Amino acid sequence: MAEEKLILWGEKNYYSPYVFSCFVALAEKGLPFEVRTFDLSAGEHRQGDYGARSITGRVPSLQHGELWLAESSAIDEYLEEVFPPPRYARLYPARPAERARARQVQAWVRSDLMPLREERPTSSVFMKEPVKPLSAAGRAAAERVVRAAEALLPAGATWLFGDFGVADADLGLMLQRLVANGDPVPDRLRDYAHRVWDRPSVKDWRARVPKGR
Amino acid sequence: MAEEKLILWGEKNYYSPYVFSCFVALAEKGLPFEVRTFDLSAGEHRQGDYGARSITGRVPSLQHGELWLAESSAIDEYLEEVFPPPRYARLYPARPAERARARQVQAWVRSDLMPLREERPTSSVFMKEPVKPLSAAGRAAAERVVRAAEALLPAGATWLFGDFGVADADLGLMLQRLVANGDPVPDRLRDYAHRVWDRPSVKDWRARVPKGR
Ligand SMILES: [Ca+2]
Ligand SMILES: [Ca+2]
Ligand SMILES: [Ca+2]
Ligand SMILES: [Ca+2]
Repeated sequence: MAEEKLILWGEKNYYSPYVFSCFVALAEKGLPFEVRTFDLSAGEHRQGDYGARSITGRVPSLQHGELWLAESSAIDEYLEEVFPPPRYARLYPARPAERARARQVQAWVRSDLMPLREERPTSSVFMKEPVKPLSAAGRAAAERVVRAAEALLPAGATWLFGDFGVADADLGLMLQRLVANGDPVPDRLRDYAHRVWDRPSVKDWRARVPKGR
Repeated sequence: MAEEKLILWGEKNYYSPYVFSCFVALAEKGLPFEVRTFDLSAGEHRQGDYGARSITGRVPSLQHGELWLAESSAIDEYLEEVFPPPRYARLYPARPAERARARQVQAWVRSDLMPLREERPTSSVFMKEPVKPLSAAGRAAAERVVRAAEALLPAGATWLFGDFGVADADLGLMLQRLVANGDPVPDRLRDYAHRVWDRPSVKDWRARVPKGR
């Protein structure tokens, strides 16, 4: 089954933080894969059988042989199980307590911090679209991200858990919502966000973002 | 480490669907554990060191020796790794494609269907608090849940993936938002939601819900 073709279904603007996470996971694993994109604003993902195949009709989904799998964190975990370390790069830490913390980060950035996600959309990160100053709620969410990232990233550490992993990709993108827009972030976290941004897998994604719309 | 005391931090009304998921996971595993609750409306979780310990300050969190872990799906996965089958009950399917689908369900009910979650809060399920008829957006979300659940639950199946698992607890609660409020649900899914409700681990939770407020 591991030999079947891998297709990542995403959206044409390359600004979904969830497609981003799976793209980085596939690239880090060094797997050959194809990206196919929908124009979400034109409702392309609601045409044809995508809704039935993916069950929920959302992007991303991963097509792997007969399996069509949606939800980015489930896709990342699936890739780790089907293409495991050490033959393929590790996406999650080996130790249960650290794996758990990586999953905490992934679940948290997907279910919290809504004011920051709304006021600093990924279009402002990947495409430099202009934003307004943060509201009080946006600033509060920004402060929570900074406080959590400071607790998560050990002093002097390059990545969250020793080696680079998908939680770094997710947290780095969340921090880039601030860094890329000139919002205040402690030096140590800004440097970390830049390191994530310079990761070859992340640069591959960034190179695909369309110039202008 | 597996022998250390387990404490689940929750909220005093027992209506968090995320604390629910972890409670069911712990109960299904047959583990001795203690529940400690905050009065969230009084901000009890923002006092003391809970925010620093849990990193994000949200409930649930699981305290296990030195580890304080937040985010319900990360807690469920941690319990499966540290208290693995067959010695302890299985929470996730064994086969990668099914494990992936279980994770898809967990991630999906935590990140989508907001109109349904708002118009059919868990207080209307656990405490029978009255609700209004669904809005158009609420009905659309209800239809999406029904469609997805019909695709996920095989014909004639008792549970999603053979044995009962945490994805059943999560999807069963999402369906109960409709079933408990008399909203239309196909018989087969209503029966499934009732089966989840009659699961001993779920009945243990339901018995803890305070009567009235
Ligand atoms: Ca297209
Ligand atoms: Ca390393
Ligand atoms: Ca209390
Ligand atoms: Ca069974």
